[in-house]
Amino acid sequence: MTYIDRLGQRAKVANRDLAKLGTQEKNTILRAVAQALVHQTDFILTENRKDLAQADENGISAVMVDRLTLTPDRIEGMAEGVRQVSDLADPIGQVVRGYTNLDGLKIVQKRVPLGVIAMIFESRPNVSVDAFSLAFKTSNAIILRGGRDAINSNKALVEVIRQALSSHHINPDVVQLVEDTSHAVAEELMQAIDHVDLLIPRGGARLIETVKAKAKVPIIETGVGNCHIYVDEFADLDMATEIVINAKTQRPSVCNAAESLVVHEGIAEQFLPALETAVAKVQAVEFRADEKALALMTSAKPASAEDFATEYNDYIMSVNVVSSLDEAIEWVNRYTTHHSEAIVTRDIGRAERFQDEVDAAAVYVNASTRFTDGFVFGLGAEIGISTQKMHARGPMGLEALTSTKFYINGTGQTRQ
Amino acid sequence: MTYIDRLGQRAKVANRDLAKLGTQEKNTILRAVAQALVHQTDFILTENRKDLAQADENGISAVMVDRLTLTPDRIEGMAEGVRQVSDLADPIGQVVRGYTNLDGLKIVQKRVPLGVIAMIFESRPNVSVDAFSLAFKTSNAIILRGGRDAINSNKALVEVIRQALSSHHINPDVVQLVEDTSHAVAEELMQAIDHVDLLIPRGGARLIETVKAKAKVPIIETGVGNCHIYVDEFADLDMATEIVINAKTQRPSVCNAAESLVVHEGIAEQFLPALETAVAKVQAVEFRADEKALALMTSAKPASAEDFATEYNDYIMSVNVVSSLDEAIEWVNRYTTHHSEAIVTRDIGRAERFQDEVDAAAVYVNASTRFTDGFVFGLGAEIGISTQKMHARGPMGLEALTSTKFYINGTGQTRQ
Repeated sequence: MTYIDRLGQRAKVANRDLAKLGTQEKNTILRAVAQALVHQTDFILTENRKDLAQADENGISAVMVDRLTLTPDRIEGMAEGVRQVSDLADPIGQVVRGYTNLDGLKIVQKRVPLGVIAMIFESRPNVSVDAFSLAFKTSNAIILRGGRDAINSNKALVEVIRQALSSHHINPDVVQLVEDTSHAVAEELMQAIDHVDLLIPRGGARLIETVKAKAKVPIIETGVGNCHIYVDEFADLDMATEIVINAKTQRPSVCNAAESLVVHEGIAEQFLPALETAVAKVQAVEFRADEKALALMTSAKPASAEDFATEYNDYIMSVNVVSSLDEAIEWVNRYTTHHSEAIVTRDIGRAERFQDEVDAAAVYVNASTRFTDGFVFGLGAEIGISTQKMHARGPMGLEALTSTKFYINGTGQTRQ
Repeated sequence: MTYIDRLGQRAKVANRDLAKLGTQEKNTILRAVAQALVHQTDFILTENRKDLAQADENGISAVMVDRLTLTPDRIEGMAEGVRQVSDLADPIGQVVRGYTNLDGLKIVQKRVPLGVIAMIFESRPNVSVDAFSLAFKTSNAIILRGGRDAINSNKALVEVIRQALSSHHINPDVVQLVEDTSHAVAEELMQAIDHVDLLIPRGGARLIETVKAKAKVPIIETGVGNCHIYVDEFADLDMATEIVINAKTQRPSVCNAAESLVVHEGIAEQFLPALETAVAKVQAVEFRADEKALALMTSAKPASAEDFATEYNDYIMSVNVVSSLDEAIEWVNRYTTHHSEAIVTRDIGRAERFQDEVDAAAVYVNASTRFTDGFVFGLGAEIGISTQKMHARGPMGLEALTSTKFYINGTGQTRQ
């Protein structure tokens, strides 16, 4: 029996125990976990410092170190997230539909847990806590496989959670950390069809691609966002400027930040130089432009074909000029990662066509793409943003971690 | 460019054309397709006879020949199915949820098509027509890959549909048949991640296993059913007898027929001999029994370990005796294919535990498993019965062929 087999079997047993807990018990335990995280702040920070020392030795970038760093405030933030999940309505047991059919059978379709969820993620250790709380609230067991860089932090967080569970007489195997961070074990997890009902990868494009190529268990692709802002011929150009600045510069490292600007030729000459000036006042952004845009911008560099397909996660933006709405839609659909796309226009017909025809989880009219987020969308929580079409699309809250089951009650009916 | 690439590209173009059709137009065209099928009955029967002649030459079994055979009545039945789909409510454009968020963004989540659906199926040619009508109603293009045995019938049916589409100025590539029935091309279809949004295999356990092992596109597993009837200590034994006879003998070839009987030891001595006698009056059924059941039945044969995991699709049933409800639940969960399972009991608490703890798409109390069906469940149609947990579980109607998309309309909002 392999390491993953053992984790998988324990998760299945834990799952059965978890199924017996009511909503009230789950909420009480989540609050206890939140409290334990705060109480164990010193222990967690000590373990986190081991990862930071290692990061320093490995010469990891300042951005990555920031993602990895825990502070008392950040730990309190994680605890507050767990408390918020405890306050959300429990989708498990919810009746999706129910009726008596022609045969007199009482048919009720109810929400049930998926079973065992696995998550493979990169450096931010808070994902351990977030993912546990959402899985626990939906009565799923979870197997976490975090990055090597954060192994000590993840071990500490999972240990604190498991202790809090044990002290409430809950099987701690509802959350397990894959402590062997080798690629071989990660691949085994991706292929553990007997143990894993759903695998959610969270991280950069490379992680997602690896998981897509190697997974045999069902996966939900998340988070890669080459998001476009299309500034139409009939746009309010001041509004367009504000939206581009916000979508590009407010937090460039996240998946719903804009990477690509598409401009209608009818307003390009007026818009692009003004945009360039306005952006420069806020933040230095490197524009990589096609030939037409290049001629209109003073600071832009020529774009390569690859630029239009790149999620920079940085202060860089590709720019191209199109001659029609059709060309804009075709362009966006060619390069979209199906995450978030936006049009800025005053024309209602063009707005509707863009929304109908662009193939993405979230399509905006006259707003920044930065809003695609489970909290902002009112789901109360977020386990990731699905960029695929099956099961869940866009920001995923608790419901995305459930399946349904038909309960049918009869009085001896047989089929004629 | 490969054969599947060409089909895939045509399907994508057809998809865009299809997106422009309103519900009324789709319904009109479905009615025209139904009419064309009836009008072209002679042509379809002529082509079907080629398959039947081939089947005769290949010495194919009578059951398979029956599945393959078309008649004027069966063609009228297909046409009637298409008319029924035209009468169903169109899920596309349906608003799943909609609200104005704290930022003043109008957020609407709407049902949208999945895109391109592929279906790999075995001998029954009516699947071509059913699958087309459900895909068309949900504005999805479909690529059909039927069995070699039915190739002439499928070609004829698809040709009739395509002609009807063309004569209504609809791009006929919304339905395409893979005419090359080689395994290599089928495998290419399973891996066509650039062209196929969802693949649904419909057929026997071997087909489903092959697709599961080889597919790279998203799939929904369907239809394999090792369905159990558990007769509890507190069952109404007359009711149990009726249910077992119905679930086993009314139509043994289908996926929701029962294959396995599980009996509580408290009533086994009374129930099993009576059942044997009652079944024999209706239909010769071969029981394959564990040691305890064997001792109580006069005609049963000893079961092998494999028997308990087998979907016979025939007048054969495995039988075993358990000493508790816990053992019954554990037994069912060990051998279930997650399709349909039933308990017969008068005890409300035991009924609830069985329904909660058995991991299947449909769990019955005091009724035959034979009811698991999209029409019977009131979905109005059925593209298959999902035995997996993601996206759709149980009978799948039109909704299972849709995704959702967030439409967000703002007035220039940017994120703070």
